[in-house]
Order: sequence, then structure tokens, then C-alpha cells
Amino acid sequence: MSALTVKRDENFSEWYQEVILKADLAENSDVRGCMVIKPYGYSIWERMQRILDDKFKELGHLNAYFPLFIPVDLFEKEAEHVAGFAKEMAIVTHHKLEKVGDKLVPAGKLEVPLAVRPTSEMIIGKAYSRWIKSYRDLPIMVNQWANVVRWEMRTRLFLRTSEFLWQEGHTAHATEEEAINESKRMHEVYKWFIKDVLKMYTIPGKKPDYDRFAGAIETYTVEAMMQDGKALQSATSHYLGQNFAKATNIQFQDKDGKQQYAYTTSWGASTRLIGGLIMSHADDDGLNLPSEVAPYHVVIVPVLRVQSSAEVLSYCEKLKTLLDSKCRVLIDVKNDTPQNKKWNWIRKGVPFICEIGQREQENNTVFFTKRANSLEKETLLFDEFIYKINELISIHDEVLATKLNDKCNSMIINVETFDEMVEYFKNNSGFVKAKWAGLPDGLAKLEDLSVSIRCIPQEQCRSLGMCILTGTETAQDVIIAKSY
Amino acid sequence: MSALTVKRDENFSEWYQEVILKADLAENSDVRGCMVIKPYGYSIWERMQRILDDKFKELGHLNAYFPLFIPVDLFEKEAEHVAGFAKEMAIVTHHKLEKVGDKLVPAGKLEVPLAVRPTSEMIIGKAYSRWIKSYRDLPIMVNQWANVVRWEMRTRLFLRTSEFLWQEGHTAHATEEEAINESKRMHEVYKWFIKDVLKMYTIPGKKPDYDRFAGAIETYTVEAMMQDGKALQSATSHYLGQNFAKATNIQFQDKDGKQQYAYTTSWGASTRLIGGLIMSHADDDGLNLPSEVAPYHVVIVPVLRVQSSAEVLSYCEKLKTLLDSKCRVLIDVKNDTPQNKKWNWIRKGVPFICEIGQREQENNTVFFTKRANSLEKETLLFDEFIYKINELISIHDEVLATKLNDKCNSMIINVETFDEMVEYFKNNSGFVKAKWAGLPDGLAKLEDLSVSIRCIPQEQCRSLGMCILTGTETAQDVIIAKSY
Repeated sequence: MSALTVKRDENFSEWYQEVILKADLAENSDVRGCMVIKPYGYSIWERMQRILDDKFKELGHLNAYFPLFIPVDLFEKEAEHVAGFAKEMAIVTHHKLEKVGDKLVPAGKLEVPLAVRPTSEMIIGKAYSRWIKSYRDLPIMVNQWANVVRWEMRTRLFLRTSEFLWQEGHTAHATEEEAINESKRMHEVYKWFIKDVLKMYTIPGKKPDYDRFAGAIETYTVEAMMQDGKALQSATSHYLGQNFAKATNIQFQDKDGKQQYAYTTSWGASTRLIGGLIMSHADDDGLNLPSEVAPYHVVIVPVLRVQSSAEVLSYCEKLKTLLDSKCRVLIDVKNDTPQNKKWNWIRKGVPFICEIGQREQENNTVFFTKRANSLEKETLLFDEFIYKINELISIHDEVLATKLNDKCNSMIINVETFDEMVEYFKNNSGFVKAKWAGLPDGLAKLEDLSVSIRCIPQEQCRSLGMCILTGTETAQDVIIAKSY
Repeated sequence: MSALTVKRDENFSEWYQEVILKADLAENSDVRGCMVIKPYGYSIWERMQRILDDKFKELGHLNAYFPLFIPVDLFEKEAEHVAGFAKEMAIVTHHKLEKVGDKLVPAGKLEVPLAVRPTSEMIIGKAYSRWIKSYRDLPIMVNQWANVVRWEMRTRLFLRTSEFLWQEGHTAHATEEEAINESKRMHEVYKWFIKDVLKMYTIPGKKPDYDRFAGAIETYTVEAMMQDGKALQSATSHYLGQNFAKATNIQFQDKDGKQQYAYTTSWGASTRLIGGLIMSHADDDGLNLPSEVAPYHVVIVPVLRVQSSAEVLSYCEKLKTLLDSKCRVLIDVKNDTPQNKKWNWIRKGVPFICEIGQREQENNTVFFTKRANSLEKETLLFDEFIYKINELISIHDEVLATKLNDKCNSMIINVETFDEMVEYFKNNSGFVKAKWAGLPDGLAKLEDLSVSIRCIPQEQCRSLGMCILTGTETAQDVIIAKSY
């Protein structure tokens, strides 16, 4: 028996929806493509934010806030950039509603329509062009936590929604080298966060040239493998060269008194990561959360009988009090059965669920379920549980990582020919490692297979081989997969 | 001499702009009415957020996130509400841009236009109508940190911008009494925050009936007096009765199995508070910050000579290290003169600016400027400064509060007749306390004076008197003032 009605091996996509529903993370709203992030889902996002924000600040970035709207004529100034986003932008054309008959209709037409930001390079670039006069003003390293809108026709909670929440870092530098280093450094931050904090399975690398961020010179990506073998582009960092500096006129006087355009970067991670977390660690019993982003590490479910309820409750309180300084604990005092409560927290992915009744109170023990270890039960002495809780939490994280790694490692294969790859994707889903010479020829054949080059991985074998699309000799490894 | 070119007594409005410019808090953007909140200004907002957010959570509220857009036909369902906002809403009508000739024009017209949220009662109400089935699901207490848009024709940084940042709490309850208590409780939270944390001068009370939030039964407000005697509505809490529950169909089954509409509240505070802080505490030398929201409490400016710079710098480092556990400290190592640095931090309102040179290092002393005490200087022994820093910070806060209170107390007068009030506002600006019977008659006379009833203050004299507008006998005191 499992806590969900759909198993991930049977219907991954329905299972994904059910995990979200049963863990009460998010839901669709009355607005096409826009989701409501419910409190439990949002508290995971708040933990992600705090960890990333602390790291950004440690590295010298400051937060700021820039306008939601971008005048369309400003957007047009970077041709490649606008081309990349024009098909999916919410456009504000009026600034009030007026009654016509008994209906309210848009009125007060704007001279220049406003795009709701799909990303903020242009509007932040314009600000930087005001802030930067001399090389002394550089580097500028600013981050923004914000909502962005990219109009989507087919949406999916967390993975693809018309509005989503993210952070976007934007930096400007005096030299190319410094800007490239910054984009690489932030790529490393995302690698650390996604692999070491979220315990996801990642292959970091560069995007092929035709798949970079619209307007970028280089896009670094963290491709994560989901349990169904598909790739999720989890966070990207872009080296933008002088493209946006030219489009928004970010100029500075260098040490020799010469006017130069700045070199810029941008980098972002979004609420999509919550979708990634789910597809990495959830199982047929629901969500599973790595400890650093888990709203609670321990939930205590009191199992009360009339004759002993006061003693048991105060035993629970004592347990919580002693755990409080070591981890995040909740006593679930809702009006429901202990069974229902336990399963509720299992579906919400709490690492340890303690059921505490008269027996535990009398024997001075803690009886608990280990979420990551296939709901294995254990009983420890009260003091021992408190003493060991941080070790238990570490083990929980290791178990999550190991399970996922074992699964994903079995879904990576090396392929030498195109036919071999076709064969593989007929019956499998996973990451195919192959040689690709970097030429545009034959990319349509990948589209036909519904797969794409996810990245040119950082780790390269450096052996020569044959490009699976063109037959050209090349040393370049790429990762090919289906993707979200 | 002062650090700004405009004095607050000469031109308050220009002075306000200059404080913001010189403290590098915010600026206008390329988008009409939308501001850029620069890093130093944003870090003040981050501190406000953290303090309020901790308090909301302590009281049992959870954060969540709801869509930016509200379908216009949903907005129409609360007639009073939509009437209140229809004239100032950004309306999205299209979902892409298409090339026509060499111009990009809006395309993909939406069937139902979307309003960019000016506030979220309707969209959150719709969510609650899905979440709430039974009295067991109540109360629901959720808060959202978000951007909202209210189209403004005449804008002013922080005080009135088309887009601003805020928090909006939305709660639903089973009984009227509980909901009223919640709206009052959150009013108390705002009173505490604005008076005790931000050290502003406040008069809390209720709004007169014609000036409530569109759709509310009662609006509680914290009216703060600025140094120029004008009022700033600083944070409001609304009891909404069943109005929004009916408009969005928030029904629940009560204990007797009967269907009932829930009682709701909403309450919000915004980046406007930064404007309030400035107009409360800044002076002719620039910003002045109460300690809890000051990005730094102490800035150390090293005064370096070639022969002693290593010793002085390490002395500064030692000072910072020992202060770090007690307060927020920065060593300013920018490439500029000590004089420029000092004045820069004075304009940014840092409570204590230490100038540390060879003399201080040799004598083991700290020479510092006290921002709140008219830039008074003091020298303390190194250990003494560290030992006393938290006391110094408390005194700083008291000085800010006392200065403001003295100023504002002198701008409150009691008035018994309308003519007396006319006379007062001829040459003065301030808070007039008068009797008002609550009738609509004569309100236009207030408009002619460019003043309005700011609130019915919580503290009432309970003496009978004559309504200054109608002559009717009444016990009700009101506060009348010019306002932002």
C-alpha cells in the first residue's frame, strides 16, 4: 500500500500532480497559467531563498528592486533578445477600466505599451547606464527577487507557469575576464545549491550555441536528471559580453580616460526548483524533502488516550523543547486521528514522524518513522533520540542522495552512433552521452525524437570520436535527453 | 553648513528628493511612475520585512503567493471594491508582440482582460473559497509579500508610485468577533512597528466611513505626522465583514451543519514606510535611521597616512571584529578621501561614524560622530566604545524619537470652531483635533482647505462639544490635517 493513488512508474505526470495536491504545495488559479503557491509550498521556497540570498550576499551581491514593466520600445533595442521573448509576453495597453453599458472595459490607452517583465536585462541595463560613469563604479553586483511573466500555453505547476517567482542577478564589469569569471562563479553557486543542498542529480555544463539565453554569448546550465530520466534545466548563468551594455548604453571611462562598454552577466533560479525537488526525491508515498529546505525535520504526533493525555502531551512538549535548538519541530495538535496525521506528514515529506503515546511516555522512548528509508520504524530512548537527531538528519539526506544517484546512474549511457541512440530512446528515458561536432546539421533529427542537446558537460572525456549527427571527428561530449 | 543644498524649512519637497538622492535610496525609472529601489534603500526595506515577517509568523500567519493578474470579470463582483480601483489599474490585453512593418505591436488579444493586482482580496478570496469547506478549516491566516500596481498620474518616490512593494495579510474566520479582533490585533502590530521600531510619531485610529478601504466595514489606520506637519497614512488594517466572502463565495459548514459565509480581514504596509521614515527623521544633513532598520550601526572610516596605514587598518579590523557580535559594522575601504566618506555616511544616516587614524591607534581610542545628536563628536577608549555600543545605539534611538516628538507635539492643536481651524491652516501645518458628528454635511469645506479627516483617534477625550462642520453636539474627536 502507498499513500498516493498513482505510482510514479505507472504515470509519472499524474503522480507528480498528486504529490503536489497531497502535500498541499500549490494549485492552479482562476487565471490561466498562473499558480497559487500554498503555505507549505511557499515555506520550501522561503528556505531556498534564504540559503541562496545568504550565499549571494556573502559573495558581495546586494539586493535591489526594478520596475515590473518594460516599455516595448526599450525591449526592441536588443534584437535577438526581443525575438526570444516576443511570443510569450503579457502586454499592458491601458491604465484604467471604464463602464460601458454594464460592463467594465479597458480605457486610458497607453502611448507606448508596456511588457510585463519576462526577465530584466533591459530595464536593469538602463539603470546601470545611469549608475556607471567610471571604472571606479565597477563592478556592480545586484540581485533582485521578483515575479516574472512568460505567457505559456501548456502549463504545469512549478515547471512551467505564466507567472513564476525567481531571483535574477545582474552584474557589470570593466573587463571581459572579470565578467566571464563572475558568470562561472555563479554557475558554481548553483551547482553547489542544487547538488549539495537540494541533493539533486546534476550534470553541469554549457548550452550549445543555438540554445543560449536570447542575447547571451555563453549560457552555463545545471541540468538535473529527474526520476523518469528527463532533464530539467534547473538554473542558468549567462555571460552577456557587451551585447546588453550596447543595447542599454552602459558605458564607463576606463583608467586611460577612454569610453568603454561594460561587460555584463545575468543568472537566475526560480520556483521551478520546487518541481525539480519533487521529481527528484518524491516517491509513491508522496514528497521527500532534503533537510535544508524542509519546513520541519521532526513532527510529533501525540497518540492520546483519555486517562493519560496530560502526561503524554507534556512528554511531547518536553521532547519538542529539547529538540528546538537542534532542528525544526512541530507538535501536530490538530483535531484528527493519529493515523491521519502521520500519513499527512508522510505525504508532506517530513524526515521524522514521531508517534508518542502512553507506552513511549512510560518507557521514556521515542517511536518514529524514517521517511527516506521506506518508512522504516525505530524506537530510541528519549535522550538518545535527542542526542542523535542531527546525525539522523544527516543520514536522511544521504539516503535521499544515494537513492537518487543509484537510480540516475543507471539511466546514463554512452552512445556511439545515431541508430544506437534511436534504439535507446525507443524503450528508455535517460541521459545519453555522445559526441557532437557542434555543427547545425542534423539537429532536426533530434527534434523528431523529442530529445535535445541538454548541455556540453563540464567534465569532458577528451577522447576523439565520431559526431553522431554528422560523422565528423570530434572530441566534444554532449548530453542528449528528453526534457521538461 | 549642512550636507544637503536644500533645507527642510525652506522647501520640504525638494529637500525630500535630495535626501533620497544623496543617500542613494531610489530613483525614477524609464517607466512612468515606477521607481528603482537602489541597494541601500532596498536593504532598509529588507530589514522592515524581516521584522514584520517574524512578528506575523509569531502570531500564526503563514506566507503564500497568489497570481499577479486578476481577470476583470472577477474584479467586477464586488461593486464598491472595483469602483474604488477602476480608475488606476494597469490592464493586460494581449499576450505577445508581433512585427508589423519594423515595429512590434501587441498581438494575441485576451478574451478577458487581466488587471494587474492593485490589491488581492478578490483573487485570494477565490482561493479561500476552494480551501474552506468546514469550520474546522478556519481561521485561515495568510500573508503575501508582493508588488502591486495602482496607476498614478503624479508620483513621488516611495510615497506614491504606480508600482510598489508591500505585504498584504488576508484572514478568514468563522465569527464576526474573531475577524474584528484579528483586524484590531494587526492594527496593534502596525502601531508597535511604526512607533516603537521606526520611532515615528503616530496617531492610531479608525477612518471615517466615507474614507474606508473600498469594500471594508471598518478601516483602522496609523496616521503618522511628518516633520512638515502633514499626515502620512502609514499602514491600514481592514475588517471586511462578509462582503468579500459573498463576492468570492467563501462558505463553510458551521458546527450545526449550516452553510455560512466567512468573515474576512486584510491588512497591509508598503515601501511607503521608507518615505515616512525619511520625512520623520531626516534633517538638513540627510537621512537618519532608527537602529532596527539601519543597514549599518557603525561605519569605520580609516584615515591613512603612508607611514602608519598597516597599523591603522589592523586597528580598524580589530574594532570591527569586536563590534561584530553586538551590531552591524562596515569598514569603508573605498578609494576616496576620509572626509568624503564620512559625509557620505552622514547623508546615509548611519548612527555612528568612526574616523580612525594614527592618533586613535596610538592612544587606543575611538573618535566618532553621533549622527542623531547634530553630528556631535566624542572620543572614547577602545574598550569603552565596544562596551558601550549597545547603550549608545539605544540613546541614538531615543534622541531620534525625542526630537521628532518635540517637533510634532508642537504641531497638534485643539480647535473648537471651523473658523479657528481656517485660521490655523492659513499659517500652519499640523494635526488639528476637533469634534465631528460623523455627518456627511460640510465635508466639501474641508476639501477647499486641502485638508481631510485623517482618523477618529483611538484615544478619545469623551467630553461633549460642537461639531466643527455642522454645529451638532457630539463627543467624537477627529484628527484633521493635510496629507500625503
